[in-house]
Amino acid sequence: MKRRAFVTGLAAASVAGCGKTGEQPSAASSDTRSFNWKMVTTWPPGFPGLGTGASDLGAMIESASGGRIKVQVYGAGELVPAFEVFDAVSRGTAQIGHGAGYYWKGKAEAAQLFSATPFGMNAQERNAWMFYGDGENLWREVYEPFNLYPVAAGNTGVQMGGWFNKEINSLEDLQSLKMRIPGLGGEVLKRAGGTPVNLPGGEIFTALQTGSIDATEWVGPYNDLAFGLHQAAKYYYYPGWHEPGTCLELIFNKDALDELPDDLRAIALMACRTANENMLAEFTARNQRALMTLVNEHGVELRKFPDDVLGRLKELSREVLQDIVDRDPVARKVYASQRAFQEQVERWHDVSEFAYYQARRL
Amino acid sequence: MKRRAFVTGLAAASVAGCGKTGEQPSAASSDTRSFNWKMVTTWPPGFPGLGTGASDLGAMIESASGGRIKVQVYGAGELVPAFEVFDAVSRGTAQIGHGAGYYWKGKAEAAQLFSATPFGMNAQERNAWMFYGDGENLWREVYEPFNLYPVAAGNTGVQMGGWFNKEINSLEDLQSLKMRIPGLGGEVLKRAGGTPVNLPGGEIFTALQTGSIDATEWVGPYNDLAFGLHQAAKYYYYPGWHEPGTCLELIFNKDALDELPDDLRAIALMACRTANENMLAEFTARNQRALMTLVNEHGVELRKFPDDVLGRLKELSREVLQDIVDRDPVARKVYASQRAFQEQVERWHDVSEFAYYQARRL
Repeated sequence: MKRRAFVTGLAAASVAGCGKTGEQPSAASSDTRSFNWKMVTTWPPGFPGLGTGASDLGAMIESASGGRIKVQVYGAGELVPAFEVFDAVSRGTAQIGHGAGYYWKGKAEAAQLFSATPFGMNAQERNAWMFYGDGENLWREVYEPFNLYPVAAGNTGVQMGGWFNKEINSLEDLQSLKMRIPGLGGEVLKRAGGTPVNLPGGEIFTALQTGSIDATEWVGPYNDLAFGLHQAAKYYYYPGWHEPGTCLELIFNKDALDELPDDLRAIALMACRTANENMLAEFTARNQRALMTLVNEHGVELRKFPDDVLGRLKELSREVLQDIVDRDPVARKVYASQRAFQEQVERWHDVSEFAYYQARRL
Repeated sequence: MKRRAFVTGLAAASVAGCGKTGEQPSAASSDTRSFNWKMVTTWPPGFPGLGTGASDLGAMIESASGGRIKVQVYGAGELVPAFEVFDAVSRGTAQIGHGAGYYWKGKAEAAQLFSATPFGMNAQERNAWMFYGDGENLWREVYEPFNLYPVAAGNTGVQMGGWFNKEINSLEDLQSLKMRIPGLGGEVLKRAGGTPVNLPGGEIFTALQTGSIDATEWVGPYNDLAFGLHQAAKYYYYPGWHEPGTCLELIFNKDALDELPDDLRAIALMACRTANENMLAEFTARNQRALMTLVNEHGVELRKFPDDVLGRLKELSREVLQDIVDRDPVARKVYASQRAFQEQVERWHDVSEFAYYQARRL
């Protein structure tokens, strides 16, 4: 595994690191160019957690650069529609874009594996794979043909399983459902006999309320409450087996990133790492409060998926992933790396995080 | 709960945030002072994960500042001994120091609650309390009288329970033990009838091998392997009930921090947040590999503490914390904040992280 890859990668040509004071020239004083950047996002403008996380990231880049990089943030539809963020940054309409890899599976099948893998790694594990396994290197390989440089820039933690208007007591109960569930989770639902639909966040509530979909997942209590999804469905299921720690991304137009002097490059990348940590902390802090509101004030019924349903969904998830791996050699490489890492980290978390959660409940 | 506190706090006087391009002056171009900082640490020089994490943090500050802040990093004993880091930064001998709050309980009883609380929050929960609860604000209140500004700058995740030369089958088995276990965990051991000892990392192996202590905890497989603790003890117990997500700190001398222009302040704080995330990811990635080496190559026997021992330790932990709270009003305020936050976040993690760990094992 790589040693200090992020640190040395921050500014390969600048400070040699390890705290030894060298005689490097100061990039800050030798390069006083400033940059006006646009950030397009896949989130409704100002949307809690996701949209605000993207705005905060822009503000951090501005602050830490002393205004040498200005960042104008656009919500979905303000400059380009949600699902055109990838193309817009690829061609340089915007310098950066905030979104999630599973929106781009039409561009590159493997992209979705960088946001969430059903029954895959949670946030802490995914970060470990990204930063100290092969995750980020593979990600860059996948996005490189599109002139994009992807960086982890937010994580939701384990999501909720979704909103339903009937109880889910067996796999059969999923079969008649038309459900908003994008990416790999959607493929699993399809294999279970349901009908997955992909909709951007801003269109979910109306679709559910008008009955054009029967069920939906979105993120978790904090975001779902903001959308008012409890007004259109009665049962709220957990856990979110399909998105156990969804990584959001900042994609850089590679030319724009390469144009930055070393110190500004380091600042932009550190701001992403900071945003990645902040978003998980924010969701962790706010979800319980929102869940209480949903249950106590709005009468939402909280339900756990039955074990046999989860067990079957786990099997179907493996099948879906195997299909992707069979038809796409890049996805095969990415998934193999994830699986190998996950097998190890699961065993470590059995004796650490999981064993501790159990001990705390005694 | 506070909204975007970190982002707005990065540089209160600079960019107004939310990505709107303003007309703020560029701090970078108007203030070209440079700074030569010393970082003292409580870790053996270059020690894996902890010492290297501190060095990496120094290197990140240098890179992102374009060399405007140079950071010379000192291991324990190179400039001051491990347990004098707090005083050295307080009086300005060094501008920054990397260590852990529980080393400073002699200075302020509440300090130890900012590193680890027995049966308290894990890393993800602690970050949420720090950044989106009252954690960091309370921490600053506690350190302010010492002219110090503390920031989260690393987390080990759930630690291991420790190294023993006999099996722990009941609480009685702990009673005769002289064990290196600092801070609150040590107080709990004392209440269980054992004898806690506090030693800096560099002295543990020799103490255990010569029999001057019977048992020890340190961090987890990655660090413990590096110290060779398996050469001095046979049984390796989990989970680390006493340190379920230990937060390491960077302490700034307040005068040194206040002297920085806004952009450099933002860079220094972002580098800490980045180090906080990186260290957890590194430990998560490396612990399993080290655990396999310990078990498969060195014949270490992995053991889980019996449930009734954990249950008793949980009760004793509550008693120890209650005692501290009863005698120290500042600790009372900090602990009350932690408890309130933990009760909420535990319920959220019951339906998210914990429920997901369970589902994945089906």
